Amino acid sequence: MSGYTFAVGNPEVKNKHFFYRVIGYLLLSLSLAQFVTMVVSFALHDRSFWNFLLAAVITFSVGAGLVMRSGSAVQLKKRYLFLLTTLCWLSICFFAAIPLYLSVPQLSITDAWFETVSAITTTGSTVLSGLDTMPRAVLLWRAILQWIGGIGIIVMAIAILPALKIGGMKLFKTESSDISEKILPRSSSLSSYILLVYLAISVAAALSYFIGGMSGFDAVTHGMTSAATGGFANYDASFGHFNDKPWLLWLSSLWMVLAALPFVLFVGMAKGDKWALLRDPQARAFIKIVLVAALMLTAYQIIHDQRSWFAALTHSVFNVVSVITTCGYASEDYSAWGSMAVVMFFYLTFSGGCSGSTSGGLKIFRTQLSGYLLVKQLNLLIHPNAVWTQKYGSKKVDDSLLSSVLAFAFIYFATIAALALVLSMYNLDFVTALTGAATAVGNVGPGLGDIIGPAGNFATLPDGAKWWLSLGMLLGRLEILTVLLLFTPMYWRY
Amino acid sequence: MSGYTFAVGNPEVKNKHFFYRVIGYLLLSLSLAQFVTMVVSFALHDRSFWNFLLAAVITFSVGAGLVMRSGSAVQLKKRYLFLLTTLCWLSICFFAAIPLYLSVPQLSITDAWFETVSAITTTGSTVLSGLDTMPRAVLLWRAILQWIGGIGIIVMAIAILPALKIGGMKLFKTESSDISEKILPRSSSLSSYILLVYLAISVAAALSYFIGGMSGFDAVTHGMTSAATGGFANYDASFGHFNDKPWLLWLSSLWMVLAALPFVLFVGMAKGDKWALLRDPQARAFIKIVLVAALMLTAYQIIHDQRSWFAALTHSVFNVVSVITTCGYASEDYSAWGSMAVVMFFYLTFSGGCSGSTSGGLKIFRTQLSGYLLVKQLNLLIHPNAVWTQKYGSKKVDDSLLSSVLAFAFIYFATIAALALVLSMYNLDFVTALTGAATAVGNVGPGLGDIIGPAGNFATLPDGAKWWLSLGMLLGRLEILTVLLLFTPMYWRY
Repeated sequence: MSGYTFAVGNPEVKNKHFFYRVIGYLLLSLSLAQFVTMVVSFALHDRSFWNFLLAAVITFSVGAGLVMRSGSAVQLKKRYLFLLTTLCWLSICFFAAIPLYLSVPQLSITDAWFETVSAITTTGSTVLSGLDTMPRAVLLWRAILQWIGGIGIIVMAIAILPALKIGGMKLFKTESSDISEKILPRSSSLSSYILLVYLAISVAAALSYFIGGMSGFDAVTHGMTSAATGGFANYDASFGHFNDKPWLLWLSSLWMVLAALPFVLFVGMAKGDKWALLRDPQARAFIKIVLVAALMLTAYQIIHDQRSWFAALTHSVFNVVSVITTCGYASEDYSAWGSMAVVMFFYLTFSGGCSGSTSGGLKIFRTQLSGYLLVKQLNLLIHPNAVWTQKYGSKKVDDSLLSSVLAFAFIYFATIAALALVLSMYNLDFVTALTGAATAVGNVGPGLGDIIGPAGNFATLPDGAKWWLSLGMLLGRLEILTVLLLFTPMYWRY
Repeated sequence: MSGYTFAVGNPEVKNKHFFYRVIGYLLLSLSLAQFVTMVVSFALHDRSFWNFLLAAVITFSVGAGLVMRSGSAVQLKKRYLFLLTTLCWLSICFFAAIPLYLSVPQLSITDAWFETVSAITTTGSTVLSGLDTMPRAVLLWRAILQWIGGIGIIVMAIAILPALKIGGMKLFKTESSDISEKILPRSSSLSSYILLVYLAISVAAALSYFIGGMSGFDAVTHGMTSAATGGFANYDASFGHFNDKPWLLWLSSLWMVLAALPFVLFVGMAKGDKWALLRDPQARAFIKIVLVAALMLTAYQIIHDQRSWFAALTHSVFNVVSVITTCGYASEDYSAWGSMAVVMFFYLTFSGGCSGSTSGGLKIFRTQLSGYLLVKQLNLLIHPNAVWTQKYGSKKVDDSLLSSVLAFAFIYFATIAALALVLSMYNLDFVTALTGAATAVGNVGPGLGDIIGPAGNFATLPDGAKWWLSLGMLLGRLEILTVLLLFTPMYWRY
């Protein structure tokens, strides 16, 4: 099956050298980002200038060192992709945390790590308060990290995960290949087109925010965190800082929705297949779920909270979109709307957007396929011998695909359950432990309850809980199995 | 596949007449139970004597009327078993509620229905308070209903569900057939043996309680509700009334564990297969889970609450066993032990005991098979072409079995999620809505939180919520799909 084999020679050595190469170049890119932030910091007469310079030098040195030690390109055995992917994310997090640790006064190592992992995994949970008066370089760095994380997710979703066939992702291997064969000259250029989509959403979002009345700095940073469905904002009130300009909430909802749709569909549309988006089963279901949830909450707010329909609709749409796309901005404390809102947002925390986008969570297609399996089983109860066929888009849904999706859903919920149990040992209350685990693994951002809810902050949690939550975010971002596999004996057995 | 076909003639008419017959005889049996309760009531000089007489007369009349209108036995098409099973439980609940409604002062129709459904599904959630001074006939009736419910569950688990192949139950069709072929003369006698096991556990529990210091009345009623893993107690403090006799808690734990093990294994052991229990994968996993959870909570109470090891161990074992077997007695308010206990009991609420017992919930074997699927998928990620085989006991686990188990788990959690959302619309708080739904569908009994937690009571919930919870209990008891199928167009299509 695998198209990759080792070249002749000692595989261990070649392998290590290829790892150096990939991670080395990643760190060189990261040091460039740190350098850019340093320049901006300098231009803004910001006091964190030297910190970013130092971080850039360290990161560059290590990156250059790794690249120099790396050998010539080898063909990588597919199973090493699991290890390489995990190591890439870990090393980026480590070096990205340095300027944050240096620049924010009294920031502990734990908090620097938590904030960085939250940024790069595009989760958006924060331990920082006093954001409104934070050095701008720090705010910019948080936004850049989310934006870089967004690229990482796209590359993973397009190039790596379908190859690894994790949790039904092989569904999208064929689908993107289909499109690339039909429309694009070469499959490798698909990635470039998709990065272009990401860039376009980022720029369009930033421009629209600026025209809508944000400052240039806010427009650029929020443009980046919207496109990445990251959810870091520059204010303690999160996106609620802009509540006096409701059109910004609507604009942001639009960009978040676009960033949570399968990017490959935009490429298809740009290439002439106008109805690609409307035909896609995942995109359709996603839009429907958003509409149903937002309208239910609008009605609930009008009836239960006697709110005006426009305010109810605006904040329902914005916060539903923000949570389901796993962006995680909040315009206000939606947990105060009433019990139904709390339960609804709890469920939305698990959902996630479409695969092949920058959003996290379980992903819409997995919920859909689980539903297919249920219909199939109900059918079998009545017609035990019936042959059941189901298509997802143009692709036939077979039993092995369903198994792989269901196994993923199982490990997804089991991971959240295990993490919540661990968190409860740090005396976090039931709601904080449960929703903290769910929001971390789903890469959403806010949890529920007084402490980590949309009006809260992760700062007051015990240090141990923050390390576990960071692990949860990384697990969620790497689709869990990528990491879990590394801890099984069979992975290391030849 | 189906071994059942209609006889010649009009199937509609024959079908109806067969339904009359089954439900008619069920109601005659119920009226006998009501008559017995009346006699006891009379002997105890209890004021509800006339109510039970009236209920017995009504139930007997309807039952006799149905039996007289029923035709001769026909062969039932298998798919009608779904409808018949659901109708049986509904009609038993309806006629069983009559004496309760008449005998408890100021009991609304809603509360009478809730309490009856909670009894017959062996859930054990109660809306009654002042149990300590309640007419004894009422307490006896609640216990008898749970005991009758226990029989219903066993009959379903042995005879009906495996035939319907719901959620992987076909696994046990073959298994019980295996045993019956090897050890028992005829398959039909297996049911009798299993009822004998049920009777034996009930009598042994009652005797041990009596010797342990309960009054005769308490011993008999708690013996019945232990064997049925029902969980109704005769006191507002639930089983905590007996906390001054800790050996009663240990005895009760033993009987609950036995009642949550596959009954067919006891038959096997009685017939000479001494190690049947220790060899069974489900029984082993169940015991292991109980031990791990109880020991973790013991350690937690010793460390977190500075409790003596004996009290910590006694109450950990008792309450873990009570919740995981879906019995639902409480010896004290375990939600006050600390966050970890709350999260742990939340998970235990979903688990359930072994299939083929009187317990409810998801059942241990479904959790196990979900785990098997995960291991299989992890294997496939590394060795895409490997052929993977897995046995469960002596039975090969194939893909169709895994699919059916996973589909069941999906609908199980989806049902709880939907029910919690509905409950939240009655302004129940997050924890009450979520755990109320879980405890109802799992047929456990207590939820978590201040209102419906182990120290609480379902009485204060709004009427609407009680009707929805009753529906949840019935759905859970009938393994959800049995009922859900009736609401699909395909069920009614020929």
